[in-house]
Amino acid sequence: MAERAALEELVKLQGERVRGLKQQKASAELIEEEVAKLLKLKAQLGPDESKQKFVLKTPKGTRDYSPRQMAVREKVFDVIIRCFKRHGAEVIDTPVFELKETLMGKYGEDSKLIYDLKDQGGELLSLRYDLTVPFARYLAMNKLTNIKRYHIAKDFDIAGNFDPMIPDAECLKIMCEILSSLQIGDFLVKVNDRRILDGMFAICGVSDSKFRTICSSVDKLDKVSWEEVKNEMVGEKGLAPEVADRIGDYVQQHGGVSLVEQLLQDPKLSQNKQALEGLGDLKLLFEYLTLFGIDDKISFDLSLARGLDYYTGVIYEAVLLQTPAQAGEEPLGVGSVAAGGRYDGLVGMFDPKGRKVPCVGLSIGVERIFSIVEQRLEALEEKIRTTETQVLVASAQKKLLEERLKLVSELWDAGIKAELLYKKNPKLLNQLQYCEEAGIPLVAIIGEQELKDGVIKLRSVTSREEVDVRREDLVEEIKRRTGQPLCIC
Amino acid sequence: MAERAALEELVKLQGERVRGLKQQKASAELIEEEVAKLLKLKAQLGPDESKQKFVLKTPKGTRDYSPRQMAVREKVFDVIIRCFKRHGAEVIDTPVFELKETLMGKYGEDSKLIYDLKDQGGELLSLRYDLTVPFARYLAMNKLTNIKRYHIAKDFDIAGNFDPMIPDAECLKIMCEILSSLQIGDFLVKVNDRRILDGMFAICGVSDSKFRTICSSVDKLDKVSWEEVKNEMVGEKGLAPEVADRIGDYVQQHGGVSLVEQLLQDPKLSQNKQALEGLGDLKLLFEYLTLFGIDDKISFDLSLARGLDYYTGVIYEAVLLQTPAQAGEEPLGVGSVAAGGRYDGLVGMFDPKGRKVPCVGLSIGVERIFSIVEQRLEALEEKIRTTETQVLVASAQKKLLEERLKLVSELWDAGIKAELLYKKNPKLLNQLQYCEEAGIPLVAIIGEQELKDGVIKLRSVTSREEVDVRREDLVEEIKRRTGQPLCIC
Repeated sequence: MAERAALEELVKLQGERVRGLKQQKASAELIEEEVAKLLKLKAQLGPDESKQKFVLKTPKGTRDYSPRQMAVREKVFDVIIRCFKRHGAEVIDTPVFELKETLMGKYGEDSKLIYDLKDQGGELLSLRYDLTVPFARYLAMNKLTNIKRYHIAKDFDIAGNFDPMIPDAECLKIMCEILSSLQIGDFLVKVNDRRILDGMFAICGVSDSKFRTICSSVDKLDKVSWEEVKNEMVGEKGLAPEVADRIGDYVQQHGGVSLVEQLLQDPKLSQNKQALEGLGDLKLLFEYLTLFGIDDKISFDLSLARGLDYYTGVIYEAVLLQTPAQAGEEPLGVGSVAAGGRYDGLVGMFDPKGRKVPCVGLSIGVERIFSIVEQRLEALEEKIRTTETQVLVASAQKKLLEERLKLVSELWDAGIKAELLYKKNPKLLNQLQYCEEAGIPLVAIIGEQELKDGVIKLRSVTSREEVDVRREDLVEEIKRRTGQPLCIC
Repeated sequence: MAERAALEELVKLQGERVRGLKQQKASAELIEEEVAKLLKLKAQLGPDESKQKFVLKTPKGTRDYSPRQMAVREKVFDVIIRCFKRHGAEVIDTPVFELKETLMGKYGEDSKLIYDLKDQGGELLSLRYDLTVPFARYLAMNKLTNIKRYHIAKDFDIAGNFDPMIPDAECLKIMCEILSSLQIGDFLVKVNDRRILDGMFAICGVSDSKFRTICSSVDKLDKVSWEEVKNEMVGEKGLAPEVADRIGDYVQQHGGVSLVEQLLQDPKLSQNKQALEGLGDLKLLFEYLTLFGIDDKISFDLSLARGLDYYTGVIYEAVLLQTPAQAGEEPLGVGSVAAGGRYDGLVGMFDPKGRKVPCVGLSIGVERIFSIVEQRLEALEEKIRTTETQVLVASAQKKLLEERLKLVSELWDAGIKAELLYKKNPKLLNQLQYCEEAGIPLVAIIGEQELKDGVIKLRSVTSREEVDVRREDLVEEIKRRTGQPLCIC
């Protein structure tokens, strides 16, 4: 018993160690080593009959959506998809899991967050981690060279060889349109470029091998102070202090197109070919953004670095300016609600001949946005309906179930959204109460006398006004009142 | 080399053996054993550098959806969801994977088709196999006792304690509405009841232990002849021939409510309590289906058995009557396009106190339906648009990109679906051709002279008619022509 308890304690501690390593983004080898130790310990423990407690929950990191939450989600998705369609995007879908080798080597440090499927003797599979790598696989597989597509209500991408920065500008226009329509508060879109970052690090004296790790330190500037970032670069990552200072002179700058022009004149930066390319493209981008009327929402921010390895050009991230305090912030970063950039090399990694298809795209942080919209609606105490039912078919006396079934069927066949209670003899009061709770606006009441007279009593739930409507006119009357076209939709 | 080749051959043969066993639905233990052997062989083989071929494909059994296929899918989903909403259903969503223990023991023979996630030291997870078990888990977790909900555009369920057969009848009404609206041809809904099946097997002399396996033999009657089914039951499953004959007398029958009434008078069947319950409920069901106007689509079919273990009462399956010959039929069965039934015990398996919540539901075979609708549209040679773009903003001469960007931005801001080519100086002919290919109905052409005159040339792509519209009237004119309301939607 004591031995088992000690073993259980070891398993628990080892589990915490593994979780800690994952959070700190330790190396994949170290994590794998410690996971193997954990599995060995668990195997020693074996099954414990006394603890056969079944836990009713969703897996860690996942959640259900209740009808109320789905109603919010549907509103948000509707705004997003409407915008994508407005910009002429097609839509595709890809499977929820991919061949493991499709995803391997595409995500850099984030690779350890990928869920693998168990090896069952067939293909090695992994759950998809984002929608961008599957998109690149789709393009290469179908030998497509240009497409403008959205995927679910999250991702929008433009693939193809086009004149510079026009598609990139449209992506930013789309981001601004969506965030404005959602009415989640003022926002700002930070823009930078991989080539500017890389060129800047080069001229500051960062060795090639340290590029990615210095990049991820700089990326923290939106959350912590320059002092802390500098300490991490010098203290933990072995950067020379003077190199760090040079970086600091650049990355703390942000502004509009004037900053782009200033840097184009910078004696050191203008010597670097990569940085010049990036700055030139940003200058052109700003021209287009001005024509699109969104330049006031854009900030060229030299500290924007972004995690994913596959970006090759412009990168952007939208942040809310009045961030409501949120518990458990989404990993997209403090206040970040959308992001994206250009990734010209990804499709080439899949193409057997290495043929490149340039891509630029964006991803909307829908989870974060749901929470914000949900909060806002709750604050406004706005009632969210979870169904669209227009009429409840009710009975005023007993033994009228048959009549209710006949009538509700007529209404459904005429395209009207209708319900009835699943009771043979429901009380009228309960039926009316059901309407109030669900927000159903009309009740079609069947009564013995009304049946003889060939009418149905149509009642408005809010005003409580009732009027007798002839049976044959009921469909038209309901449609008139609910603003529906007279043809079936 | 020869050794390696021999080993590779062994791996290949063992892989085929495993696949064969899965197809034949061999026992889980046997399959696991053979998979372990396969993994051992593969481990011996190790990685082969010379064969590092990267395969560009989706995992076996999964597929992508191109824009054209998505357009078909969207039409189908739209019909289905409209119907669910018309019947007052709320919508929920659950994660793509669940705790392994949530899904264990719920699917009977189908359990071996479940994908597990790799044990990475945390929770043991599996990909969801259907939407019904997650729904039951959701109900138990949230202690819900009644809800009418749909999930994605596939599943519809009514949970709760209600007066008998009313929700069951509504499920069948929904199935018929959807299949009629989709216009995929004539269909029939077969109906049976688990209690009738079980009662029938009991009075025929089938031992309890053989129930499920005899059930799955009977289920094959929609694909093979009675002779073959009898041979399987007697020859392979050890059933006495006279017992098989008695079964045959029943299961080859199908009809309307008159068959229900006939069986209620059957001397042997009417002695069985279960069968009586089932028959009584079916009689009531037929009354309601008649009031719903769909009794002509329903057939009481004693051979309908259905795979899933969790059904406890009425079961149903919709089949197309003119089945187009299809390669690789969906596993739902020949011509089956929708199915469902009552499952009163599932939620109780999750509830810690075993509290039951009765449920009845249906699932639409969307994959099968996509193929059919796709085929039909192709046969009609109907052009399927993959975008909803209404206007292309074009230029008649060079150096007009800025003007195009400004105009397209105005149109987007006014809620109009518009595009432009991502070229600085596109040829007018190419822009017109783009519209024809994409099905875009209007072109707003910017020209130097027109700019001076303050007008835009609006051209109809199909009629080729052009008219000059004043810049300030353009939005209204486009909305008028495309039937859009004047306010932003």
